[in-house]
Amino acid sequence: MKKFENKKIAFLGPRGTFTEEALLSAVAVKEENLVPYATVYDVIKAIDKSEVKNGIVPIENSIEGSVNATLDVLTFEANNLLIEREIIVPIRHRLIVKPGVGLKDITTVVSHPQAVAQCRKYLAKNLPGIEILAANSTADAVRKVAEANHQSAAIGTELAAKLYGLKVLKEDIEDFKDNKTRFVLLGKEPAKRTGKDKTSIVVFIYEDRPGSLLQILQEFAYRYINLTKIQSRPTKKGLGNYCFWIDMEGHVEDEVVSSAIKCLKCKFRVVKVLGSYPAAKK
Amino acid sequence: MKKFENKKIAFLGPRGTFTEEALLSAVAVKEENLVPYATVYDVIKAIDKSEVKNGIVPIENSIEGSVNATLDVLTFEANNLLIEREIIVPIRHRLIVKPGVGLKDITTVVSHPQAVAQCRKYLAKNLPGIEILAANSTADAVRKVAEANHQSAAIGTELAAKLYGLKVLKEDIEDFKDNKTRFVLLGKEPAKRTGKDKTSIVVFIYEDRPGSLLQILQEFAYRYINLTKIQSRPTKKGLGNYCFWIDMEGHVEDEVVSSAIKCLKCKFRVVKVLGSYPAAKK
Repeated sequence: MKKFENKKIAFLGPRGTFTEEALLSAVAVKEENLVPYATVYDVIKAIDKSEVKNGIVPIENSIEGSVNATLDVLTFEANNLLIEREIIVPIRHRLIVKPGVGLKDITTVVSHPQAVAQCRKYLAKNLPGIEILAANSTADAVRKVAEANHQSAAIGTELAAKLYGLKVLKEDIEDFKDNKTRFVLLGKEPAKRTGKDKTSIVVFIYEDRPGSLLQILQEFAYRYINLTKIQSRPTKKGLGNYCFWIDMEGHVEDEVVSSAIKCLKCKFRVVKVLGSYPAAKK
Repeated sequence: MKKFENKKIAFLGPRGTFTEEALLSAVAVKEENLVPYATVYDVIKAIDKSEVKNGIVPIENSIEGSVNATLDVLTFEANNLLIEREIIVPIRHRLIVKPGVGLKDITTVVSHPQAVAQCRKYLAKNLPGIEILAANSTADAVRKVAEANHQSAAIGTELAAKLYGLKVLKEDIEDFKDNKTRFVLLGKEPAKRTGKDKTSIVVFIYEDRPGSLLQILQEFAYRYINLTKIQSRPTKKGLGNYCFWIDMEGHVEDEVVSSAIKCLKCKFRVVKVLGSYPAAKK
């Protein structure tokens, strides 16, 4: 008897988010295997319980920086999960309206506060003083516009416009053109070494020990390991208590990487390894 | 003739935000001198143009980490502005309803997505599956509940509940009890040296020069200067290009601090000094 293979992939929903768009741009997945979840926490729990095989969440944006919710859930709540792959895609914001609606008809703009912030200059120039309504996600904003009686516009993805039968009135309304987001595909299987890999770890330091970050960095400098990201995050135990999320070039099976991690484990409270995976082109 | 003294203070509004609550807890200010602005950017522009004498914005939370909007505006948009003071206050989330409404009557919860995220466990236990609506701020959420026809609840401040004539149904619904936010009071006058001071700077590194952060940290370690915060921020020029926000113990008039800054200015592209100010008690 053929073993049932779970091909489901969880993503940060609802349908039509940048996360779904990123997933579809990189992975061949059938519509019936796409499962939206409301939060990053729900995505990783779904993988944990094997409701899905993989899950995809955003981890870093070139304008906004780290996605703190993702770093925190992976740091504090994920067990036995690994980053299997990274996916980097350009973020292009669209002004989305009902068919027939023009720029002059718009009375309200709806979107996630972060998307609104990324289009501040466009809005100030083209829709000055417009009323801004908050939504839980860009996809949710598009849904709201589709259901609204008045003539509002959403800032969202092309995918969401398509899903809700709306029209893209204006493309690329983001203030900064080099706007990219890095997503990570999570699962339970370690990715194979390719020779062009990255490794993600979190180092928990002892409280009130000045110079900890310097000591961490020295372990890597000494071995000529290049760091591609370092992000302090509060441990939620008071202002000034941190752990450090670190992405480096190399694979845990590389001798220098494994020896750096071994030495960090000797010196610091906890080192959590979140996996090695092929490096994406920027 | 007596010179007109501008005593106005800008804050991140609308009325009833945590920022206004923090300001009132630390500074004696008359109601007519309180001026709400919609964004951190508007607050600093108001100080710049001398519409107000000072302005207050949130910079860091013990759960969420840095307030990126504030770091970015101060890094990229503020000229000749200084941090004159820091104010640290506990963040206590309240469930706010119209008088007469009980927990069982609530059909919707409204708040800023970050406040909702900080009360996730409380909501899951006490209002499972409740519909969540996004608002642009906690204060805006309280206003929405005051104006709504249906029986909704906001997550917000005691001050906002008072301003809109609503009732605090439940206090301290935040998941983590050690939830504090650090605010900074901005202005144009350097604060006097007290002997217990902090200094904030931003160091811009040259692109693609590995080991930059290590070199920065060594300047401080060598002089026994304790860092209280270090935060990388994207320069908005592509993934992987960073500058570093650094808070340290000491005053720019201390010899070790001024010499560390001088050496950083020799080595790196730009060093922006955002002021020295008395350290608040945590």
